Amino acid sequence: MTKILNNHVLAADVGGTNTRMAIVTGNGDILTLLKKPTHCKNGRDEMIRFLVSFAREVIEKSNLPEEKICGMGIGFPGPLNAETGTIFNPPNLNGWDNVPLKDILEKELKMPVAIENDANAAALGEWWKGAGSGTGSLFCITLGTGVGGGMVLGGKVWHGASSIAGEIGHTTIIRDGIECTCGNTGCLEIYACSGGILKRVNDALLEEGDNGKFQPLTNLKEIDQMLIQGNEVVLKIIKETGVILGIAIANLANLLNPEVVVLFGGVTNLGANLIGPLKEEVKRRAFKKATESLRIEFSQLGDNSGILGAAKNILSRL
Amino acid sequence: MTKILNNHVLAADVGGTNTRMAIVTGNGDILTLLKKPTHCKNGRDEMIRFLVSFAREVIEKSNLPEEKICGMGIGFPGPLNAETGTIFNPPNLNGWDNVPLKDILEKELKMPVAIENDANAAALGEWWKGAGSGTGSLFCITLGTGVGGGMVLGGKVWHGASSIAGEIGHTTIIRDGIECTCGNTGCLEIYACSGGILKRVNDALLEEGDNGKFQPLTNLKEIDQMLIQGNEVVLKIIKETGVILGIAIANLANLLNPEVVVLFGGVTNLGANLIGPLKEEVKRRAFKKATESLRIEFSQLGDNSGILGAAKNILSRL
Repeated sequence: MTKILNNHVLAADVGGTNTRMAIVTGNGDILTLLKKPTHCKNGRDEMIRFLVSFAREVIEKSNLPEEKICGMGIGFPGPLNAETGTIFNPPNLNGWDNVPLKDILEKELKMPVAIENDANAAALGEWWKGAGSGTGSLFCITLGTGVGGGMVLGGKVWHGASSIAGEIGHTTIIRDGIECTCGNTGCLEIYACSGGILKRVNDALLEEGDNGKFQPLTNLKEIDQMLIQGNEVVLKIIKETGVILGIAIANLANLLNPEVVVLFGGVTNLGANLIGPLKEEVKRRAFKKATESLRIEFSQLGDNSGILGAAKNILSRL
Repeated sequence: MTKILNNHVLAADVGGTNTRMAIVTGNGDILTLLKKPTHCKNGRDEMIRFLVSFAREVIEKSNLPEEKICGMGIGFPGPLNAETGTIFNPPNLNGWDNVPLKDILEKELKMPVAIENDANAAALGEWWKGAGSGTGSLFCITLGTGVGGGMVLGGKVWHGASSIAGEIGHTTIIRDGIECTCGNTGCLEIYACSGGILKRVNDALLEEGDNGKFQPLTNLKEIDQMLIQGNEVVLKIIKETGVILGIAIANLANLLNPEVVVLFGGVTNLGANLIGPLKEEVKRRAFKKATESLRIEFSQLGDNSGILGAAKNILSRL
C-alpha cells in the first residue's frame, strides 16, 4: 500500500448528477480533469462499475505509468463513515445502504482509497489550496440546493461521534420559524438554500400584489436580475437572508472560533446584497476577539475544492 | 523540565472568590486538597504571591519530596492564551493585562507550568476522569452566574483561533430576545444563567400579581422550593429555560456531533424540571444520528473537575 513515489493520486468529486475525476499531484496540481454524468439510476452496482471504469479512463488518459498513481481520494454524498469508507444511505442515491465502497474500490483498482463526504472534502480542499490555505481552522458552508458544512480543525477534518459534524444548515436560527425538510423548525437551511430563498422571494412578491399577473421566479439568476433592477421587495428578502446567515456564523465564531469561514455554492452569487448584511450581523453578535481573528471569504477553488480535498485526504494517509 | 518520575503534579483551580489547590497523581488521585479565599483585591502582584505561597504550602503539607512533583497545572479565569500561558484581562480580576503567568510561576516554583482557562479545565477534567471518560469528544457547559463552555475533541482541548472557542453562552437562541450583558440579544446565557433565570421568574411572579406583597426571590434554592410547592408560574419559566438550553445543545449536536455533553454548575440543581424539557427539545431538533450517539449528563466530578483538568493539562505536556 505504499507506492508513494511521486505522489500522484486519483481524485473524484462524485455527485448525484455529475462526477468529476482527475489526477492530482502531491503539490495540488490538477491533471487530466474529466467530467461525466453520474450513472446511478439503476442503483449501487451500476454506479460502482461507472466509478471503476471512469477511474481507469482517467489513468489511461493521463499517460502516467500506473505505479505512479499511489491511491484514490473520493468526495461522496454523505452520510458516510470516513474511517471505514462505508456509505450509509445518501438520500439522493438509490440502493445504497451500508456499502463498503472503500474496500470494493481498493480491490477493483488495486490501490488505497480514502472516502470523505462531499462537504468535508470541499472544506479540506479550501484548507489545503484555497481560501483557508495556511490556517489552523476553517469552516466551509455550502449554500446551494441545501446548506451543508464541513470543518478542518488543527489540520484535520472533524467528523464527530457519528460522522455528521458540520451540519450548520440544521442549526436553529429562528425558534418558531419555517418548517424545515428535516422536521425541525427555523433551520438555517430552510432560509438560506436556493429553494428556500426563491420561496420567500415569491411569497413576498405575491403578497406585494400584481393584479393576477404574477409569474413566480424559478432560479437565483432571476432574483439577481430583480436586484439589479432595484426591486425593494426582493432586496429585503436577500438582506434578511444575509442576517440569518450572519446569526449562524456569529454562533459558529463564538462556539468554534475558526480562522476562516468559506462560503461556497450558487447562493453566494447574490453577492454584496447578501454578504454585506451577513458580515454586519456577525460583527454585531459575535465577540470582538472572535471576529477580529475571523475572515469570511468566498470559495477560491469553486468546483475544484472537492477534488483537491479528496486528493489531500488520500495523500495524507499514504 | 523532565522530572517525570512518579508523575505527581500540583493542580490549582483559581477563581475570583476561592482557590483550590492539590497534589494529583498520574492516575488522577487527589491528595492534600486545600481551599483558600483568593487574595486578589490588590491586583496581580498580590495574587501571584498568594499563588506561589499557596503552592509551597501544598507541597510542604503533602510530605512529598519536591523532586517528585513534576509540574503545576492551573485552571484560571479567562480569557487567556493556553499555549503561552499569558493572561489577557479577566473581567473579574483587577490589574491583569497580558501577564505571562506561566513564565512567572515557572521561575518562582522551578517546575513546568501549564495554564488553561477554567471552563476548558473543567471540560478536560470531566473528559479524563468524569462523565466523558473514555470518549472521543465532550462539550462541557457551565450553568452558573454565567454560562460558559469548553470542549475536548479527539483528546485535546479545542481553543480556536484566538482562544475563545467554547462560548456557547453567547450563541443566539432567540433572535430578538432579551439583551445580554455582552451587547448581543437573545444569547443562551441571559436565559440560562442563575441571575437570568431569577429575573424571568420574578418578572413572571410579579406579573401574576400578588396585591403588592411580592417579595422577589433571591436565589436558586428559593426557586427550587417553589417548584416543590408546585408553583405553575415558576415551573413554566424553568421548563422554558430547559427548552432554550435544548435548542443550544441541539445546535451543538448537529454542528459538532459530540459524544457527551456535560452539564455543570448550580443551575443543574433545578433537576428534572429543567433537564426533561431540555432533552425533549434536543431530540425534537437534532438529527437522529446525532442524538443516538449523544449522552447528556451531569458533571461527575463537581468542584474537582477543574483541578483534575488542570492536572491532566500539565501531565500531558511533561
